Amino acid sequence: MAMARGYAATDASKPLEPFTFERREPREDDVVISIKYSGICHSDIHQARNEWGNSTFPMVPGHEIAGIVTAVGSGVSKFKVGDRVGVGCFVDSCVGCASRDIDLEQYQPGLVGTYNSFEADGTPTQGGYSDHIVVKEGYVLSIPENLPFEATAPLLCAGITLYSPLRNWGAGPGKKVAILGMGGLGHMGVKLAHAMGADVTVLSQSLSKKEDGLKLGADHYYATADAETFKALAGTFDLILCTVSAEIDWNAYLGLLKVDGTLVLLGIPENPVPVHAFSLVPGRKSIAGSMIGSIKETQDMLDFCGEHNIVSEIELIRMDQVNEAYERVIKSDVRYRFVIDMATL
Amino acid sequence: MAMARGYAATDASKPLEPFTFERREPREDDVVISIKYSGICHSDIHQARNEWGNSTFPMVPGHEIAGIVTAVGSGVSKFKVGDRVGVGCFVDSCVGCASRDIDLEQYQPGLVGTYNSFEADGTPTQGGYSDHIVVKEGYVLSIPENLPFEATAPLLCAGITLYSPLRNWGAGPGKKVAILGMGGLGHMGVKLAHAMGADVTVLSQSLSKKEDGLKLGADHYYATADAETFKALAGTFDLILCTVSAEIDWNAYLGLLKVDGTLVLLGIPENPVPVHAFSLVPGRKSIAGSMIGSIKETQDMLDFCGEHNIVSEIELIRMDQVNEAYERVIKSDVRYRFVIDMATL
Repeated sequence: MAMARGYAATDASKPLEPFTFERREPREDDVVISIKYSGICHSDIHQARNEWGNSTFPMVPGHEIAGIVTAVGSGVSKFKVGDRVGVGCFVDSCVGCASRDIDLEQYQPGLVGTYNSFEADGTPTQGGYSDHIVVKEGYVLSIPENLPFEATAPLLCAGITLYSPLRNWGAGPGKKVAILGMGGLGHMGVKLAHAMGADVTVLSQSLSKKEDGLKLGADHYYATADAETFKALAGTFDLILCTVSAEIDWNAYLGLLKVDGTLVLLGIPENPVPVHAFSLVPGRKSIAGSMIGSIKETQDMLDFCGEHNIVSEIELIRMDQVNEAYERVIKSDVRYRFVIDMATL
Repeated sequence: MAMARGYAATDASKPLEPFTFERREPREDDVVISIKYSGICHSDIHQARNEWGNSTFPMVPGHEIAGIVTAVGSGVSKFKVGDRVGVGCFVDSCVGCASRDIDLEQYQPGLVGTYNSFEADGTPTQGGYSDHIVVKEGYVLSIPENLPFEATAPLLCAGITLYSPLRNWGAGPGKKVAILGMGGLGHMGVKLAHAMGADVTVLSQSLSKKEDGLKLGADHYYATADAETFKALAGTFDLILCTVSAEIDWNAYLGLLKVDGTLVLLGIPENPVPVHAFSLVPGRKSIAGSMIGSIKETQDMLDFCGEHNIVSEIELIRMDQVNEAYERVIKSDVRYRFVIDMATL
C-alpha cells in the first residue's frame, strides 16, 4: 500500500476537504500515474452530494485525469515511466469475465467507475482529485504529445461523451449537426463536429456565448428562448446532441430533425419527458441515448484530438478552490471546464 | 368522367352506405383499375369516424387495393390491360414538384392519400371500397402472379408498414426481433421477419394466439400481461416493432432491448408517453417511428412476398358486412385482416 493525498467529500452535505487514503501497490498489469491535472465534471457534484442516491463516502471525485507514468507492473507493455497518460470514467469492466476484450464495455454490466464504485475485490475506488492513481494498463489512455497537457484532462469525459455519438451517428461532411447547450460538454461537441467536417449549429438558451461558439467552430448559433428559432430551423438537422440535463420539450427538438434524424440524449434529466409518437412516426425520427465511450474509442478520440489540435477550453484552478468551483459549475459560470492543477494540492 | 360505385361514410356518426361518385377519365399517365379486393385497415375506421379530426365527407375509405388493369393512358409503359396490380396508402406525392423521383416520399410534404385527401387540383380522393380507381402509373404496384389475389390486398398497407422498418433496422439472420401485438400488422411482421431470417418473438397481451404465431413463423411467444416476461426477456432484442396504438409503458419495452437496440413505433397513441432518459442512455438505445414505405420499397416488399409466398391471413367478407367488420376490428376480433370481396358490391 502507498498513501495518497487528495480532496474528498466525507458526506453528502459537507464541502470537499483534504483527505489521505491508501492506493494499492501496483500489480503486474498496473500503471502508477502521478496526477497532474484533474477536470471537474458536473457528475462529480451530483455524486459528492449524493443527488443520484448511490454515493459511498468518503469519496474522492474526479474522472478526467491527465498525468505522468511513474511506475509500471512487470507485465505492462503499452506504457513506460514518463509517458503522458489519461484516465477516464472507468478503470475496470466486466468483473468476473475471463477477458476484458469486449466491445462497448461502457454499456456492459460490471463496469468499475473511477470513483464511487468498487473494484472486483470490494475495494472502493477513489478518483482524480488526488496526487496519484493506480490503474490497470487496459484502462489507461495515451495523450498525444502535441496537446497542451492541462486542457486534455476534460477530453477523458466531456470529449468522449460527444465524440462517441458524433461517430456513431455519422457526423461528417454534408451532415447538419446541432449541439444543444454550450457548456463543458457542448463546447467540445462544437470543436469535434467541426473537425469532422459537419455543418455545426449551436442551440443555446441565449446568444451570450455566440462569439465563443463561432470561434470554436460553429457555423450557426441560435437562441432556444426565441420561439422563432423553432420555426426557422424546422426539419434542418441530421443529428442533435442534447448536452443539457434540464427538462426540455423533446418534441420541440424532434421537430428540428430531418427525415431519419436522431436526437441523442447525453444527460439524464430527473423526470421522464412526455414524448408524442407523432414527433417520431411521420419522419422516421429517433430519440436515442449515449454514454461516454469504450476504451478503444476514447483512444481514437484522443488521437483525433491530437491530429486536429483539439483540447477543452478551461479555467485552471487551485485544489483549494474546488468548492467554489462547484458552486460556479451549478450556475453555468465557467468557460468551459474547470481543471484542478494538482501541483497545488 | 366515369361513374363509380362504392361504400362511403357520409358523416362521422353514420355507418357506411352505398355511394355513387365520379372518377376522372384516365390521363396520359393514368392506369384504370377494376378493384377486386379491398382490405380494411384500422385507420379506415379512425378516419370514417373523424377520430383524427381531419376527415372530409363523403368518404370512400380503403387503401389496401388489389385489382386488374382495365385501361391505360397513352403514356403508360409499365402496365397493360389484364395486369394484377395494387394501390396502397398514397396516389401522388410532392405536389408542385417537377418530378416525383424523390426518395422516401411517404415522409415528404405533398403526399396525396388514397382517400380523405386532395389531388393537386383540389379534387377529393376516394379509396378502395369501390368498383374502380384511376391512379397515376408511378403509384401503381405489380402483384406477383403466384400469390392468392384476395390475400395480397393487406400487403399494400399492413405489409409495407412492417417490411420497411424490418429492412431499415436490418432484420435478418442473427438478429432478434420482437413483434409487439399479434393483429393485422403484427402477424405480417411475424411472417416477414421470419422470412428475412431473424429470430422472431411475439409479445402479445395473452397467449390466446400463440398457436397461430408459432405457425406463422414466430420462434417464441410471450404474454405481456405476465410480469415475468419482462424479467425473462430483459436485454434480449435488437429490434422491437410496436404495432399497438394503446398507451403502453415504452420504458418497460426499452428494457427488453440489447445495447444499440431500437423500439420502433408504427402506430400513434393519442397521448404522449413519459420516457425516461435512463431507459435510453445506459445502453445507447433508441425509440423511433416508421410509417408505411416508399413506392419503390412497396414494390420490393411485394416481390419479396412473391419469392417467399407471403400473404396476409384474412377473413373475406361481403361489402354489406363492412359496418359489422368495423365493430369486430375495434374488438380485435379478426384473424387477422378483413378483406372485402368487391364482386359483392
